[in-house]
Formats: sequence, structure tokens, C-alpha cells
Amino acid sequence: MAADLASQLSLDHGGKILLAIMDGVGDIPIPEFGGLTPLEKAKTPNMDMLTAGGALGQHLPVARGITPGSGPGHLAVFGYDPVKFLVGRGALAALGIGFDLKHGDLAARINFCTLGEDKVILDRRAGRISTELCIELVKSLKGISIPGVKVFVEPVKEHRACVIFRAEGLSDSIHDTDPGLVGEMPLDVVPTADGAEFSIGVVEDFISQASEILRLKAPANGLLLRGFALHEDMPTLTERFKLNPAAVALYPMYRGVSSLAGMEQYNSEPADLSGEVKAAKKALKDGKDFVFLHHKYTDSSGEDGDYERKVSEIEKFDSAIPGLLECGFDVICITGDHSTPCPMKLHSWHPVPVLIYGGPQRVGWSARFTEREASTGALGTFQGYELMALLLAGAGRLAKFGA
Amino acid sequence: MAADLASQLSLDHGGKILLAIMDGVGDIPIPEFGGLTPLEKAKTPNMDMLTAGGALGQHLPVARGITPGSGPGHLAVFGYDPVKFLVGRGALAALGIGFDLKHGDLAARINFCTLGEDKVILDRRAGRISTELCIELVKSLKGISIPGVKVFVEPVKEHRACVIFRAEGLSDSIHDTDPGLVGEMPLDVVPTADGAEFSIGVVEDFISQASEILRLKAPANGLLLRGFALHEDMPTLTERFKLNPAAVALYPMYRGVSSLAGMEQYNSEPADLSGEVKAAKKALKDGKDFVFLHHKYTDSSGEDGDYERKVSEIEKFDSAIPGLLECGFDVICITGDHSTPCPMKLHSWHPVPVLIYGGPQRVGWSARFTEREASTGALGTFQGYELMALLLAGAGRLAKFGA
Repeated sequence: MAADLASQLSLDHGGKILLAIMDGVGDIPIPEFGGLTPLEKAKTPNMDMLTAGGALGQHLPVARGITPGSGPGHLAVFGYDPVKFLVGRGALAALGIGFDLKHGDLAARINFCTLGEDKVILDRRAGRISTELCIELVKSLKGISIPGVKVFVEPVKEHRACVIFRAEGLSDSIHDTDPGLVGEMPLDVVPTADGAEFSIGVVEDFISQASEILRLKAPANGLLLRGFALHEDMPTLTERFKLNPAAVALYPMYRGVSSLAGMEQYNSEPADLSGEVKAAKKALKDGKDFVFLHHKYTDSSGEDGDYERKVSEIEKFDSAIPGLLECGFDVICITGDHSTPCPMKLHSWHPVPVLIYGGPQRVGWSARFTEREASTGALGTFQGYELMALLLAGAGRLAKFGA
Repeated sequence: MAADLASQLSLDHGGKILLAIMDGVGDIPIPEFGGLTPLEKAKTPNMDMLTAGGALGQHLPVARGITPGSGPGHLAVFGYDPVKFLVGRGALAALGIGFDLKHGDLAARINFCTLGEDKVILDRRAGRISTELCIELVKSLKGISIPGVKVFVEPVKEHRACVIFRAEGLSDSIHDTDPGLVGEMPLDVVPTADGAEFSIGVVEDFISQASEILRLKAPANGLLLRGFALHEDMPTLTERFKLNPAAVALYPMYRGVSSLAGMEQYNSEPADLSGEVKAAKKALKDGKDFVFLHHKYTDSSGEDGDYERKVSEIEKFDSAIPGLLECGFDVICITGDHSTPCPMKLHSWHPVPVLIYGGPQRVGWSARFTEREASTGALGTFQGYELMALLLAGAGRLAKFGA
């Protein structure tokens, strides 16, 4: 609701906003740290400074107890209720490689796999073939033709590719063909709801032609389809909040989800935090007034359960802050898209700490950007999709509601 | 919303959950305790231990400022939004005595009462007649017959019984006939909404026949009907959350409401906390993965305003915890269905403290299970029906939302 009101009340002028995401930054106490979290353990002089002059809170990306994927977690902090704006993994994969998805396209992820005799799956990832081989295999599939349907096959990375079907009347109510287990056969193409008959036929045709082409190409002699997703345009940040937004992200998934929200993609040179800071600066020079900057490695270290590395990734991000401060943003927000506690090695449902620096805030209530201080911070606990209203408000980009 | 998402994402495997309800446990500061609440005053070494190794929060059973009855309070912590899933007291009473309510049945509570001349109520509880007499009176009413309607009359306890009408097209839009005061006559049977004409006729017929039968049976020479409730099946915890749930409760009301949620009822031998712990252990042995355990006397002492007894009931529950820990639950939650502050001698709207022990939690933030510490605990303040999502998440029984 805050997001919808913010949309109605948004102004086309005001301060410039940085939304910096430390992916998966939230954590739980680490026994090896004497019960401190990585944020508590890390030395973060710059975030401490921003905290002292800003305000803390925490956001729930989806709902209490609900663990978000990367798509919903990011859509939430971009101001979209992720329950209303669902994006399937197939669509994210396609967007992530820069494929220009159109409204109504049906996308799915392809995993090349190894099939034994009797079509039983021996390796769901075909021994993680090289990206070069993936590109070659994809080329061999480009000849597939289905009457009345445009078919695009695109390589992603290693054993991963994606397929996009373009036609009128497609549906994504289709079950994965990946049984998730070796020793079983790929599943038949079955619908998960009524009205998918046309799409089922298209996908069956594709699989049948592709299987014939791949038949003798062991180890990648089969394919599994996952994450069928019909792409539906969503309103961009420009349409919703009158922003001219930019994204600075190194990984396809985050470039994909920010493209969905209408952000212009900026490349980082070098492809690290220092390059990302430069890209953010360039975006402001180009007249952008909203920059999403993504730091991936707090999440990957969390997923590896490597709490020492997570601390060092937090410290690395902290050391990039002086450069970000120099860019000239009026409001800087540092948060995550979800928590990835090291002891779990997984995304989790735990609330995500939020720091807002700049604009009129109830400053001086908190000293350090940690889960614990954030839980009692001036901003309180709120839904992830409400964050955008707080940022727009802080930047003076929202009109008053009512007279 | 958290509950609906949890329903969509629930897995059929994971940890075993104990939901232990100290009925009405929440309170407000007691002047005689120097401003401490019963939870603060009580010696609770076991709950202190669980708190240090778990996380606190507080739940709102219905909404801010709204005082729940026992039905809504329990439905909430079972993961049902009590505003959507309404259960009348009549239906609860019938379920509580093990009556097999069918979809569409109309149930109401009966209070036998003492009427004077001119039908004025002299005692709304007929001097709290014995249960034996109640059974006898109910027998005398079993002959009542209404064309086209099946009528069941069942004894409950002391002056309390219930009646169930079974027919097509019944409605529960019927006002209580109990004026709530002595010195007045029982109220006429009046509708509270349109469409209850048929039911009004049925109830009038029943009251007229029953009044004739009871006329000479003083002190129980009259009856009052309350809590008309049409029974509608609700999805069980198995349907909603893929749980195999059990209930351990001594009182009919709580057996009733947990039956509604599809919990299998376990009997406690002896009929006290020690027997309840044994029953919980047996439920786990039987393969149950969710056990609701109900401790009534924190509520009854609160309703009596007896803060010393409430303290001792809290301590009694605390001393049962080692036995519960031995059962082998993966996640243990201790909370209440509502607050029953001793100074009010009534249910109240105050948030209810929640303790979750087990699963990945932000541990070490709190020291004692009290209203005050719970209000700033790591779990925050949430709707009662969101609790189930937190328990399922803690037990590893929820899939991730989105990719």
C-alpha cells in the first residue's frame, strides 16, 4: 500500500537516491564469533559513520517466515510487492543474458544433461560442460522450427541455457521436466493448470526435435526444462515513481531483475566494486536520479557458510563507501534483498537490516549497522516494498497525501 | 498473507513442532508485585534457558486493540486468520464434547436457568446444577421433534449443554436469547440479519417444546440459548501445511477448536500437565509432527484476578519443560492465545509474548520470557496467524518463495 500511495504521490524532481544491496547480508549469531553476526564482527568505520548520521530499520522481503528467492527479494526493495509481481526463473535467466523479452513470451531454463540407455538421467548437469560447448550445442538447436511459433535458444553458462517461445496465447502452467533426481527419466510435459494445451504441444515439439539433435552428443545428450515463465511487462520505476533509474550489477540475474523494473544497465570496468562505484558516478552524470548497486559476494559467502569471508566482503563493501559518498547522492540506502545466514548456507526468512542516510531522519538513535540495532531502529520493521516510499520521502520526491 | 504463502510453500517433511499454549498468559503490571507482571514475577529457570537459546517476539491474536475469544485466539496461533475463519461458541461447545458436527449444522450453547413467576430470570446458571442433573435434563429433551430437522441435545458440564440442528438452509444470524442479566425475561428469538426466517422458526419451536418439558424442573426450569453458530468445514492443518497434527488439551473448548483444525485428540493420563507431557511424547511416537499442548490455568487464574495463582501456574508450566524437551521436538514455541490481565479479570487485546526455541534463530538477544522483553525481541511484533509461518520456517518445512 505504501508503494501504491508513493506511486500516486511521486514527483518528477527531488534528490538522487542510491540503493546499495549487499546481497544476503542479514545473518544470525555465529557461534565461532561468540554469538556475533558477520555485520557485528566486521570492522565498518564508514557504515558506522552513516549509521550515526542516519536511521536504521529492518525489512521483510515477502512476509514473516517466508524465504525469498533473489527475484522477489530485489523486486521488493525496488518497490514492487513480490506476491503480486511474480517473475519466474526462466524469465530472469533470459533477462539476465540481455535477451529482449516481450510481453507474452514463454521462457524456460535449459539444463543440458547426460542420459543413459533407456533415457535415464545419469548427470543432471552433463558434468558441468564448458560454456564453449554450451554455445556450440545451442547453435545446433537454433534450427528447430515450430509452425506459428518463434523459438529462441540462448546459451547462459556451463550446462545452462534458456529457450524462449514467442507466440500468441502461450501459458506457463507447465511443470518442470527435471525430476530433480538422477536415475529417473525426464518427466513428461504436463500442465499445472487448465488452458496450457497449446504450450504443452509447443514444448513437446521442441523437446522432441532437440532430443534428436542432441542424441549423439554425450555427455550433453539430453535436456531438462525448468522454471517456465510467461513474461508480463511490469510498470517501470519511471512509470511508478517518476524516476530515471540505473542499475550497476555484475551478475546476469540482477541485471535481469533490474531491467524488468526499467533500469538502464551500466557496465562496470573493472568488474568489481571499484568499477561499480565508477559506473554509479557515471549514471549520475548521465542524469540518472536512482541507482541500484549490487554487491553479490555477501550472499555467496553466506551460501558457502564462510562467515570469515562474509565479514571480509562486508568490510570490502564498507571501504567502497567513501567513493559512493563522493558521487553526490542525496539519499543513500544500504540493505540486502534477504538474509543468507552462514550457519544455514541458504537464503532465509529473517528480517533484513536497512540503513538510510540522508534526508530528514531521526538520526543519532543507532551506532552500528547490525541486525540487532536495526531491529529497534528509528525506521521500525516494514515490508520490503515499503522501502521505496521511505527513500522517495527522504529525497523529497513525494507530495503530501490529502489536503 | 504469511499464512497463505506458508500454505503454498509448505513441505511434507522437516522438523517436529511443539506449540505450547499457556492460555491467557499475557498480563499487565500488577501493583502488588511492584509493577511486575506474573511472567516477570515467576521463577522460570527453564523458560529462561529456552529464551537465552531462542528468540522472543509478540503476536496480536486478531488486531490491535481487539480482544479475542478463545476460539479466534487459538485459530490464530494455528495459522488461520480468525477474521476469515469465524467459529461460534456453539460450534466450539459441540466440538468440545466430541460431537461430530457436519458442514451446515447449526449449534448453540444451552444454559439451564431458574425462572421465577412471569418467566423472569432468577439465576442464569440454575445454581450451577450438577453435571449429573444436567445429563438427566438433557435426556428429557431428547424427545423434542421438529419436522424436517434433526435435533441433537448434548450435556456439557454443570448448567451447560448444547443443541445442534441439522437441516438444509440453516442460518446462524440469530441473537442470543440470554439477556445477560437476572430480573429480565429470556429474549425472543430474533434475527441479526436477513435470511434466518427458517432457523428462527426452528429455534422457537425447540424453545417452546423445551420450556414445556422443563416447566416443573426447578431450579432448572428454563433455558437460555447463546452463541448460534453454523458449522462450516475449514481446511485442516494437513491440508494447509502438510502437517500430521495432534492436540493435547484437557478442556472441551480447546479439544473442539483443535479438532476443527484437523488435529487428532490425545488423552492425558493423569489429567494434568504430567499427563499432557506423556501424551505429547506418545503423539511423536505415533509419527505426529505437530503437537498443540494446552495449559488452561494461567487463564482461569487471570480471570479470577488471582495473580499469585497465575504466578504459580506459570511456574508449574515451567517445571514441565524438561519433560517436553525430552520428547524430541525440533522447534518449541511457548505463547498464549491472548492476554488475560489479572487486574482486568478478562481477556484483553494486549500483545501476547512468544518464545521460539530451535531452528535457526537470532538467539542471545533476550534473557527472560516476559511481556517487556518479548516486545523488543528478535521476532518482532506480528499477527497471530503469522506465527505458523515462523514455526514451519524454523522447522525447515517451507520452500523458498520464487527464484
